[in-house]
Amino acid sequence: MPSPVPDGHVRGALLPIGGAMDLQRRRLILLRFFELAGGSNARIVVIPTASELPDGGREYLEVFGKLGVASVELLPVRERINANDPAATEIIAQATGIFMTGGNQLKLTAVLGGTPVATAIRRANARGVPVAGTSAGASAMSAHMIAYGAKGLVPRYGMVQFGPGLGLTNRVVLDQHFGARHRLGRLIAAVSFNPYLIGLGLDENTAAEIDDDHLMQVIGEGSVTVVDGAGITYSNIHQLKVGQKEAIVGVKLHVLTHGWSYDLIKREVIPPVVMPALPVAPSLEQPAADPEI
Amino acid sequence: MPSPVPDGHVRGALLPIGGAMDLQRRRLILLRFFELAGGSNARIVVIPTASELPDGGREYLEVFGKLGVASVELLPVRERINANDPAATEIIAQATGIFMTGGNQLKLTAVLGGTPVATAIRRANARGVPVAGTSAGASAMSAHMIAYGAKGLVPRYGMVQFGPGLGLTNRVVLDQHFGARHRLGRLIAAVSFNPYLIGLGLDENTAAEIDDDHLMQVIGEGSVTVVDGAGITYSNIHQLKVGQKEAIVGVKLHVLTHGWSYDLIKREVIPPVVMPALPVAPSLEQPAADPEI
Repeated sequence: MPSPVPDGHVRGALLPIGGAMDLQRRRLILLRFFELAGGSNARIVVIPTASELPDGGREYLEVFGKLGVASVELLPVRERINANDPAATEIIAQATGIFMTGGNQLKLTAVLGGTPVATAIRRANARGVPVAGTSAGASAMSAHMIAYGAKGLVPRYGMVQFGPGLGLTNRVVLDQHFGARHRLGRLIAAVSFNPYLIGLGLDENTAAEIDDDHLMQVIGEGSVTVVDGAGITYSNIHQLKVGQKEAIVGVKLHVLTHGWSYDLIKREVIPPVVMPALPVAPSLEQPAADPEI
Repeated sequence: MPSPVPDGHVRGALLPIGGAMDLQRRRLILLRFFELAGGSNARIVVIPTASELPDGGREYLEVFGKLGVASVELLPVRERINANDPAATEIIAQATGIFMTGGNQLKLTAVLGGTPVATAIRRANARGVPVAGTSAGASAMSAHMIAYGAKGLVPRYGMVQFGPGLGLTNRVVLDQHFGARHRLGRLIAAVSFNPYLIGLGLDENTAAEIDDDHLMQVIGEGSVTVVDGAGITYSNIHQLKVGQKEAIVGVKLHVLTHGWSYDLIKREVIPPVVMPALPVAPSLEQPAADPEI
């Protein structure tokens, strides 16, 4: 669960990103994280633990370096034994921004869970340090994490596997590559397990900035799908066997684009103060010239 | 997550029970809950929501009535729509003890999650009201709940399904009918997802009393198996496919009986001040005369 905020501090923003972040052209999300972390004074730590690749995370050193941060460092934590090294904790204690790469979210929690590094991340965020994560790094942020699951638009029993996440927030369950991988069904199923949770489905190259007051704002070119289950009047999730389709009544859905906000306490949508220009999107008629982002 | 404790209050105890509680002869657990709830001044609310039976929970009215509590009432919440009724919230607001029956823990969270009743339970506990739960009612207490799973002593991928629980505590993952249903494998698998969690495997007719200081004490005739994963140096949980066996190094296990305690913050066992008399147990040689408890 989130660490308590020390006196005189404000909890840092969370910036879960739906994967496939544009690092070259439309860099809205990257620039926002740069700003949150302190701009040219930023000391960024990149946590590559979710990656199965021995040099996973290295690409971000160049990306952040080019932005002109004061420092950027790769946390040398690939296995659980590294996460008990006081040197790793010290690196996090010095950071003004923490960025978690993609990979496998279950690796992230299995390696970091219950170690001093996980505690250091939670405490840094409580002191005001922003934490961003893309793909697996986004999934693992909340207390309740989607560890893995199946695709499809219709919820079925067994299509979503929860796991205990890093606990930087606890009101939401985050899913990523949302539109691209047809994950609405599993997010609805997840929310129906316990409608206390608000589901946030993050499209690729799209982030949900969550501030200290539990206000979420969408940044990027896709959308964030909000699944609010507070008004569910009926579901049969507890009566099903694996693979059976779920019946569910009263799910509320919002599809929010760049600049729209959502109050995670009041469960209310807040429109942008100034309606943003329509996002630059590929035409529905013509395939995009460069669909690989 | 647990509600904040208001000024001048102390968080109430949690009393998860491993199912098959003895209500007639060896009533250690029942008497302890009676005492925690205020004895003859107790106003008990029985929450039958986990039960699929239309009159589930009624048996406890008689049990608590015979103990001589001031009042005992069945919360009329069987479906989600009942859990939004202000009358139900008011009943919880007046209680000095809350008891959740067995049944299906996923029904408990799917029906109560995100409703005023769930909030009222968390707030009552934060104000000092003890909350007990047996079987499904025990599983659902923590933020991270075992929703269902498979039996067996060896951990395998996919043998444990997490779900978001009621969030009265967040450091533990609780399993019940533990010895009787051979659930060690799934509890180890659960802890390996994120070793932040401490696994507590509750035998039948056995409770783990968890106080405000995160001290857990065993009450009853069986044992509580503590699975501490903080020292895990290796696991391959994130690399497996469903059904494959997990390799895992460095799990610490304690099997604690009546009177033994465990500090959930320090992860340390505390022996009883006075060693209790050996529990009255059936001989290993001879079958017990009355194995149905």
